[in-house]
Amino acid sequence: MPVHLNTAGAGLMPAAVVDTMSGYLRQEAADGAYETELRHADTLDKGVYGNLARVLDAPAEDLALFDSATRAWSSAVTPLVLTGADRVWITPYEYAGSLILWTELRRRTGIRLEVIPLLPGGDLDVDWMRRTLREDVAVVSVPHVPSGCGIVNPVEEIGRVLAPWPCLYLVDACQSVGQLPVSVADIGCDLLTGAGRKFLCGPRGTGFAYIGPRLRARARPVFHDLHVADMTSDDTYEVHTDGARRFEYAERSGAAIVGLDAALRQHLDRTSRRAGDARPVRDLVREVVEETPGTRLVDPGARHASIVTFVCDRMPAARLREELSARGVNAWVAQGSHTPLFMRRQGIEHAVRVSPHHYNSAQDVEVFARALRAVIG
Amino acid sequence: MPVHLNTAGAGLMPAAVVDTMSGYLRQEAADGAYETELRHADTLDKGVYGNLARVLDAPAEDLALFDSATRAWSSAVTPLVLTGADRVWITPYEYAGSLILWTELRRRTGIRLEVIPLLPGGDLDVDWMRRTLREDVAVVSVPHVPSGCGIVNPVEEIGRVLAPWPCLYLVDACQSVGQLPVSVADIGCDLLTGAGRKFLCGPRGTGFAYIGPRLRARARPVFHDLHVADMTSDDTYEVHTDGARRFEYAERSGAAIVGLDAALRQHLDRTSRRAGDARPVRDLVREVVEETPGTRLVDPGARHASIVTFVCDRMPAARLREELSARGVNAWVAQGSHTPLFMRRQGIEHAVRVSPHHYNSAQDVEVFARALRAVIG
Repeated sequence: MPVHLNTAGAGLMPAAVVDTMSGYLRQEAADGAYETELRHADTLDKGVYGNLARVLDAPAEDLALFDSATRAWSSAVTPLVLTGADRVWITPYEYAGSLILWTELRRRTGIRLEVIPLLPGGDLDVDWMRRTLREDVAVVSVPHVPSGCGIVNPVEEIGRVLAPWPCLYLVDACQSVGQLPVSVADIGCDLLTGAGRKFLCGPRGTGFAYIGPRLRARARPVFHDLHVADMTSDDTYEVHTDGARRFEYAERSGAAIVGLDAALRQHLDRTSRRAGDARPVRDLVREVVEETPGTRLVDPGARHASIVTFVCDRMPAARLREELSARGVNAWVAQGSHTPLFMRRQGIEHAVRVSPHHYNSAQDVEVFARALRAVIG
Repeated sequence: MPVHLNTAGAGLMPAAVVDTMSGYLRQEAADGAYETELRHADTLDKGVYGNLARVLDAPAEDLALFDSATRAWSSAVTPLVLTGADRVWITPYEYAGSLILWTELRRRTGIRLEVIPLLPGGDLDVDWMRRTLREDVAVVSVPHVPSGCGIVNPVEEIGRVLAPWPCLYLVDACQSVGQLPVSVADIGCDLLTGAGRKFLCGPRGTGFAYIGPRLRARARPVFHDLHVADMTSDDTYEVHTDGARRFEYAERSGAAIVGLDAALRQHLDRTSRRAGDARPVRDLVREVVEETPGTRLVDPGARHASIVTFVCDRMPAARLREELSARGVNAWVAQGSHTPLFMRRQGIEHAVRVSPHHYNSAQDVEVFARALRAVIG
């Protein structure tokens, strides 16, 4: 088995997740998928939301499940009622997918998109936010940890700054849930999205969102599915819940949901034992890169998560990834175009991204160090 | 194992589908999910689309995959550019989820929703369509086989009627793909959607659409994901493909996609052997119901697919489903509210739906007949 240092892409599912999913699929094939769903209704309709609520420190009725974090984000952001009088604040760390969505919403509604400035070291200028906030800032969007580099943005502090204001506060927590403590209650956000597959080590094809009551009140989805709505006459329909699940669709993969639930339970178990901190391994990886000649860390900010990104003068990132892979090390390529306002603006088109997790050991870092030296040392 | 007569809910996955998915999940857990995706890129990016193209008789570049048929439908219909000058024709068999979407689109755009009338026997009045079609009919939406009853609507004939006109032609083929020959080329539609889980016997959490060039030209999606688009400057983005995949999102379950691919291959193999016609079994089921006192078939139209729906004077449908289940027979409840313009208008709130497939035998029908008689005979 390779040394997996690509959890920011997707984490390694524990056996409990794979076994739960495979068992569920076998049951579907034997007994019928609708019939299996009925038997697992407790987990599918309640248990998984309860476990996610514990992981995110948020009320279960404010949670919704999706087939990806991108879907979670777009399902909550697309229906926001915005006008040309609204300002939307984003950061230079905004994910390109989200930028595409804001760009299109600006074209349609006239919103003004404004970028929160950085301090010289790369941290968000929270004081600038404090000084500059006005009533017409309708939305503030901050990634907890961006996908291209390991900076940890101070989402709790920003939450306290925003609290007195009417703006909606959106937090992309894709890269933080599962590796850092994430508390919706402490952050005070209106939207927080994440993926099952990354540091939670759940299955692909799973995403989730905390969608708070303030955001729900300001969203007008085009479509509501039959698990939450029905036609009340030939030409009227009614939505039966104000909860976050009205943003979901009815059909989904039961196997993926029970797999996500198993991953959430494993995560809760691990954190209750205060186990699974990848920080020392992350620091070891960082040292290895720093000590390797010809590399340059892309490492803004004061606080760092378990994502170490670097460029290498001697070799394109894609080639370096392949060479590491040939030596049994899974790393990934962070594309500058995915955080264009930060990485591409620095002239970085591609970088190597190394993202260890709790299952990586100091020996794994040794393997990585040897491989890196063999390739470019 | 129960006798599964609920394929209109979800079909039984063959072992090849479950094994393919479980193997894929194990590989993800051992080697990493992004790394596994690279290894299966041929199937995930090409093979599955090619097999779906063969099943639907449609060009692969016009196909897109989703996490459900509902998602496929709403992803293609929501972005249609419609105005108050447009008429949208639906049928009394329109699915409630789709009705909710049309109702909301009418509220937003002012489109006029009009219902194609039925002939006395329940068939669509195609001559009425022929006589009444005008340039201002922008959309015609027809389910091939509705989910609540087994009528087969003449989608090919309707396609020939619509061909000279500018209207977009939308076909919901959820209940027909996998049990009836479905040819996009013969139907001549602009959108055809389906689910992997029903008569194709693929995994839950999979849906697909043929999204033709005429529809794509008249759709303006709010969001394009990073597999087809990127930011070209700080405030512009570009979509790199005009193909149907621009309606997809990048993230999805690789296990579900390889499972769908396995199901498509099994289906192609079966149909090439001209095997798997469930018609005789469907007729046997229909006879059993007809011969059971106190039941009434909900059975409009001249042509019938493998869905037999009936109401029972002596027992609510939900209770009857449970009693059948206790006797080892999987049936389901068709809700009148899910095809309100047909079933609910007839005063039917719930009916029992029995939907055999190629894996059901005459012996299975015997088991069903004995169970039905034991419960209400």
